[in-house]
Formats: sequence, C-alpha cells, structure tokens
Amino acid sequence: MLDTLGIALIGCGTVGGGVADVLLRHGDRLAARAGRSLALRRVVVRDPAKLRDVPVPADIVSTDHAAAIHDPAVHVVVELMGGTTTAKKVVLDALAAGKHVVTANKALLAEAGHEIFEAARRAERAVCFEAAVAGGVPIIRALGESLAANQVTAIQGILNGTSNFILTAMAERGMTYAAALAEAQRLGYAEADPTLDVDGSDAAHKLAILAQIAFGVTAKPTDISRQGIDTLDAMDIRFADELGYTIKLLAEAWTSGTRNAEPGVRNEKQPDSSGSALRTPHSALGVALHVAPVLLRHTDLLAQVRGAYNAVLVRGDVVGETLYQGPGAGRGPTASSVLADLIDLAVGRAQRTFAAAQLWSKASKGFAIEPPERVRSRFYLRLLVADKPGVLADVTRILADEQISISSVVQHEAAESGGSPVPLVIVTHAAETGRFKLALAKINRLATAAAPAVFFSMGD
Amino acid sequence: MLDTLGIALIGCGTVGGGVADVLLRHGDRLAARAGRSLALRRVVVRDPAKLRDVPVPADIVSTDHAAAIHDPAVHVVVELMGGTTTAKKVVLDALAAGKHVVTANKALLAEAGHEIFEAARRAERAVCFEAAVAGGVPIIRALGESLAANQVTAIQGILNGTSNFILTAMAERGMTYAAALAEAQRLGYAEADPTLDVDGSDAAHKLAILAQIAFGVTAKPTDISRQGIDTLDAMDIRFADELGYTIKLLAEAWTSGTRNAEPGVRNEKQPDSSGSALRTPHSALGVALHVAPVLLRHTDLLAQVRGAYNAVLVRGDVVGETLYQGPGAGRGPTASSVLADLIDLAVGRAQRTFAAAQLWSKASKGFAIEPPERVRSRFYLRLLVADKPGVLADVTRILADEQISISSVVQHEAAESGGSPVPLVIVTHAAETGRFKLALAKINRLATAAAPAVFFSMGD
Repeated sequence: MLDTLGIALIGCGTVGGGVADVLLRHGDRLAARAGRSLALRRVVVRDPAKLRDVPVPADIVSTDHAAAIHDPAVHVVVELMGGTTTAKKVVLDALAAGKHVVTANKALLAEAGHEIFEAARRAERAVCFEAAVAGGVPIIRALGESLAANQVTAIQGILNGTSNFILTAMAERGMTYAAALAEAQRLGYAEADPTLDVDGSDAAHKLAILAQIAFGVTAKPTDISRQGIDTLDAMDIRFADELGYTIKLLAEAWTSGTRNAEPGVRNEKQPDSSGSALRTPHSALGVALHVAPVLLRHTDLLAQVRGAYNAVLVRGDVVGETLYQGPGAGRGPTASSVLADLIDLAVGRAQRTFAAAQLWSKASKGFAIEPPERVRSRFYLRLLVADKPGVLADVTRILADEQISISSVVQHEAAESGGSPVPLVIVTHAAETGRFKLALAKINRLATAAAPAVFFSMGD
Repeated sequence: MLDTLGIALIGCGTVGGGVADVLLRHGDRLAARAGRSLALRRVVVRDPAKLRDVPVPADIVSTDHAAAIHDPAVHVVVELMGGTTTAKKVVLDALAAGKHVVTANKALLAEAGHEIFEAARRAERAVCFEAAVAGGVPIIRALGESLAANQVTAIQGILNGTSNFILTAMAERGMTYAAALAEAQRLGYAEADPTLDVDGSDAAHKLAILAQIAFGVTAKPTDISRQGIDTLDAMDIRFADELGYTIKLLAEAWTSGTRNAEPGVRNEKQPDSSGSALRTPHSALGVALHVAPVLLRHTDLLAQVRGAYNAVLVRGDVVGETLYQGPGAGRGPTASSVLADLIDLAVGRAQRTFAAAQLWSKASKGFAIEPPERVRSRFYLRLLVADKPGVLADVTRILADEQISISSVVQHEAAESGGSPVPLVIVTHAAETGRFKLALAKINRLATAAAPAVFFSMGD
C-alpha cells in the first residue's frame, strides 16, 4: 500500500462539508478504491465557529490558507471557497508549493484557466475539476477519457438546474417566470439573487470549460453569446408547445454542419433550404457557442429532462450520441465528483490524464470560435402586432429582403377583443444570425409592432 | 513522446473493422490524445478474403493468432472474435505473453472473469472491457472511476437494444411480439436467431459484469433470475399502460432496502405495507440480481428510453441517481469504447485502474447474492379466468393465505361475449418472490384458471 494522500480543504460550506463527511466516515471504502489512505489533514474556513455541520476534529481547522498549503503532510489542496480572487491565489500558491489541486470553481477556470493550467504544467502537478461542471454528472471524464477516440461535433447541455427547474414549472404548471422563480427560491433551488443562474452566466462558464476539452478553444465571456430565461414570457412556452417544442436553456457548442444532424442521415455540410435546415457555423473549422433558450422537439432526450437535473448530450464522430444526466448541484452530488478526483489522484490516473490532455495550452486542435453573427440557425420569432391588414405582408417582406425563408406561420387571436395587439409566430428556415438580427431591427421599427419582437433559436 | 503502442486485432468483423478504420484514418488524433502513437501491427481473421470493408494493409493480415500474440512489436491484444472457447485461449495466451488485453466479450468475462483476471494479475497486465457492456455508453468507467467514492445501491439497466426496440414497437405501435421481432430482424437490430437477446441471456452477462464492479459479487448464470420478452403478450403492455406503467426489459442489481428508494425520502429498511412498498433483498448485505420485464412508471427516466438505445441508471449513496444513455451496439459505438481503452492503456491510466480495482478477486466487498426466492418485490399478476362468480374471491384468498396484500385490481371485460375467459389484473404490495410463486402455483390449479397466470415485477 502506498503512502497516505494528505488533503487540505479550503472552504467547508455545503460541498466542502459533504467532502469532509465522506472522508471522515468512509475512509475504509475510499482506501479500498484508491489502494491507499486518503487523510483530511487541514480544513481552512473563514469562521471556524460556523463549522457545525460536520464533526471535523478541531485541531485541523484554521483560518490560515498558507499554513495548510505549505503543510508537508498535505499533497492535494481542494479549493471549494468560490470566488475568483482569493481562490485564484490559493490555487496558484498550492501549485507553486508542489501540491495537486482539485476545484469545483467554474468561474475561476473559465476566467483564468490558461494561467492556472500553465502554472500546473510548470510545477508538474495536476488540476482536477470534475465537480466544476454539472455537479454529480461525470461529464469531464466522459469528454476527456471515455470519448477520447472521437472528435466531438456537438455538445448540448442543460447545465443550470435552477433555470431548468423554473422552465419545467412554467411549462408543466403554467406558472409565470416570477412565480416559478419564487418557488425555486422557497425550495432552495435558487439563490436570493438568482442573476448568474437565470441570465446564462453560470451555464456559459461551464460551457467554456467543456468547449476547451472538446475543441481546444479558449472562450472569453464575450465569445459566448448569452440569453437567459429571465425575460421569458409564459406565452412563448405555450406557443412552442403548440408547435411541438419544449423551451430549454441550453449551453451549446457545435461544429460546422453538425447541428442536430444525425450522423449519416441529416449530416449536410450546407443548410437545407427546403426543410430541416441546420444551424451551421460559417467556416469549416468553426465552433459555434451560445447559451440560450432553445426550442427542442418534445421527443428530444433533453426536452424530457425535468426539474433541477442537469444533462449533457454529446455527439462524437465515432460513437454517435451519448447522454449523461444527474443532479447538477448540491452537497452529495458535487462531493461525489470532488472525491472521484481525489481517488484519481491517489491512484495516479489524474496526473496522467492532466499531462495527456494539455488543456488551456497553446496546442491547438484546429478550431476557432465562430463569430456569433455568422452562426446559422432556424429561429422562432414572436411578434405582438396591431390587428390590421398588411402586417404579415410587411414582416415577411423584411425577412425576404434578408434572404430568410419562412417554415411556418401561426397567427394567434387576440386575448381581448377590440384592437389589442395579436401574437404572430413565425418559424424560419436556417439563416445567419447577423442577417436575422438586421431583419429583426427593421421589424421592430414597423409602426404596427406593439412590442419588441421575441426570438429563440430552434434546436433542429 | 513515448514509444508507439503496438496493437493486434483478433477478429475484424463489424466492430473490429470500426476499430481498424479509426486507427488507420485518425492516427494523428489518437496520438494527440494518448501522447504517443497507436499502431495497428496485426489483424487476425479466419478468412482474409472476407476482409473487404476496411483497407487494412495486406501484409499485416493473417490467420495466425499465436504469431500476432507473440509479435514483440505488439503490446495490446484486442479480442473481438466472440465466443468463449478460442477467445478464452487467445486472451489467456496474450496475458501469458505479457500483453495487455482489450475485449468486448461479455459472455467470456461473465463465464471466466475470475480465471482471466487472476491470470492478468499474475502477468501484471491489464484487461480492459468498456465495450463489453452497453456499447458506446461508458458505464464501466462511470462505475469504476467516476462514482468510485460511492457505494452503489442500485443499478437498473436497459442493456439489450434488440429487446428494447421490440418493446418500443409493441408499446407505441401496438404490434405483436412476432411482428416487432420480424421488423427488428429486417432492420438489422435482431439476429436471425434472436434467442440470446430476447430471453435475457445477453443482458444477464452484462449484469454479471456490472455487479462485479459495483458489489464485488461473482454471479454465475444460475445466480441471475432471468425472464425474457419472448413470451410477452401485447395485452399486458396495454394493461400496464392503463395503470400508468411501461414494460421494459431491465437488468437490475440492488441492495437491501434501496429498491427505487429516493435517498432520504423512501429509503425504508422494511417494505411499506401501506403504499409504495419496495423490492428488498432479505439480508442486510444481500444483493438482488435479475433480468426481467419490469413495470416502470411512465415518468421514470428509463421508461422514456426508446428503440435500440441502451441506458443505465445508477444510484450511489453520495451522488444520488445518475443516468448514462447511448447506442448499445454497432460498429461506431462499440469501436469508440474499444479505442477509449486503447488510449487509456497508451496513457497508462488503464494499468492503474486495473491494479486498484481488484475485480474478480477474493477481496470481498461484503456483499452476497440474495437467493431469488427471498427477494421482495411488488408484482403485476394477470390471469385469464372463467367469467363466473367467486373467482376473484378464490384468487384473493390464495394471496391472503401467503400474506400477500393487494394494491389494486382491474377486471377487464371479455374480448368476446359468451363465456370466454376474462383478463383479471392484480397489483400486489411487496412480497417475497418465493411466497408469491407458491400462491401462483395454487392459482394456476384453480378450475377457473383458463391459462397459466402471467406476472412481472413492479419497478416501484
């Protein structure tokens, strides 16, 4: 049996408490799986008095990061404090001190992945981060190891459980966004300030990490076009449902010609102008990235992911489509992923994976991020227009002028009689996002437009 | 860069051809992922003239296993020939010659896992088998690595795509078993002789492998109670649907008190006689194993897996429930998993995983296989009975005598009028399988029983 692996836990809140709990209660199990003991040597928290949840021995608790990092009995530093300032310093200091790092901090990796991974390579230490994306769902291992023989061509993820909980409540129980958010907050699925969850920021951080693994692209926050669910109107969920679609907040990355194409079936390089046209990045080696509410057919696997669950659909050129689903947050699920990383370090797998993967390095996989305006997609467009002759003619003329052809039109009756605006829903064939937005601006300037047009990407 | 990893492929049919194709066409990609080159050195087939599918260089093709195995430029032997006689010899010879082994052969591992893994440990070589269970779905890595911090408490798998394709056609299109099987054969989802797929044997082999990883139990074929779909009547799919259930052929393993229990919610140690009673193995450390058609609620994740897909739901004591879904067979999916194992060997991960896992070893995880008759379950029971007074009283009296209480009863009207037998559906609360079968024998002896009773396990 190898020497004990010594662990310092920086941050011991919900997730850290879960990690400490399993380390302390199931040491025998972990040792059997790892072939050596895993010992919790240090726990660093801001306020030791608040550490009530888990019976961590008092003599290993402190407020001193540096002492924990430099303790020679510590081999791995687990960063679970969150934030990107002190956390970054802790991670870089740990690597400089020759310690491996495990972190669940998606914002930190999305913002400073390059700097952190270069530091780890210099120090010949590993950084592990299974818990940073999709909680208990092992999507990092799936992309980096299980699917390693594939070139990934598309990733579609439900990566924010809060948003999916809200969307499920709106779709299945006809709730408004505000009511669904209030329920999510009451049940602990949403924070008091839910902004980063519902505006797509959290999902974008996670997508940046997945895109790095699958395509080798380093996406800055501004590279990922981002639309949240915070302005979603219940009316659009109803209209989508009538058309056979479910609206999900998706984090997506896809390569040229592969958007929702079944391998060998609809895998056209060019969008099909006659029917099921595809969202397509412009250049041959472009990767389109976005976080947005997307209309998925009711029968799509991801359309059936309900509540606070996370799920990721990955399309690879050898395997086809595989799906990974599970709890995306919370004490147990996130702790499970942190502990899997610790076992991998103890076994010696993680070090080899880290060295082989060369993440956030200069080594390019040949992909570039497609400018958002060049990405092709079908669109759902919903207008509120005056109930007057000629409105549909005006709107369709503007779309035609931008070479955008129409797949279907549904004009809904006004909710009230007597001159109030009526909803008009148009589904387009594939069009470049830039052109679509030009048309949108013109449509919004029509005298008959009663409110700014609402639009979403179609998943097919 | 490390030395090239030399590969011998024994068997080059559908899957072997897929592996050779990727090795030959995407060598650069694989080398980048593995940090070293992967070279196809030898291909051994029964009839080299039949190797039309893939442009394998003629000078590496032969019919000579031994020459390939003993070639010093070969480091890994990939066994894709199938069967359990020559394949076993090839695997053992390869290990004795100091070669690692990758195999997709579930029957071989289920039958001779102990002997093969002991030989590998003696030779200090690794055996990798991601492709042996669920094709392109990385369930072996999920159980062995991603969920390594968990004690798995339940596995529910749709592990036979042929059966799931047939069941989907029967449920969604009202087809008979015979018609659905004929369609599966026409589309290439079923073999000319489909026996091993539809009688549960194939799924039982895969379940034996998963149970070894999750619970350390070595299940012989006779240890796994097995019921196929080959005698399934379309009538039972309809009745199940009316009750809110979908019938799926499941391969299941679960520990005491955990059958379909949400952690912390319905995790009773004893079955609940009032409502949603659980299937429970008898002893504290018992593991129940079976392959059987099971009634799943329409809303269960596995109930929504359609067509030839495979899916595995795993419940762990730390993570909760995670689901893995994808294509369970076929050239690309299975090749993807074989190649993932080859990359893991090239990186050096697989050797460490193999050493740490101690599969098919004497090292017990403390679980024993529960005798099938002691396993508790709820049951769906469907009779065809004479339309006479007193029949329901007779049946319910027999069940009561065995202490089996009834959850619901639906008596269906006869399809034809005039004395023809009527279907009677009874759903029970949890009961020991042995007792249920005693009652069943008595019911079948009733003068009013027009045909042997049909029964299935309930998933909740």
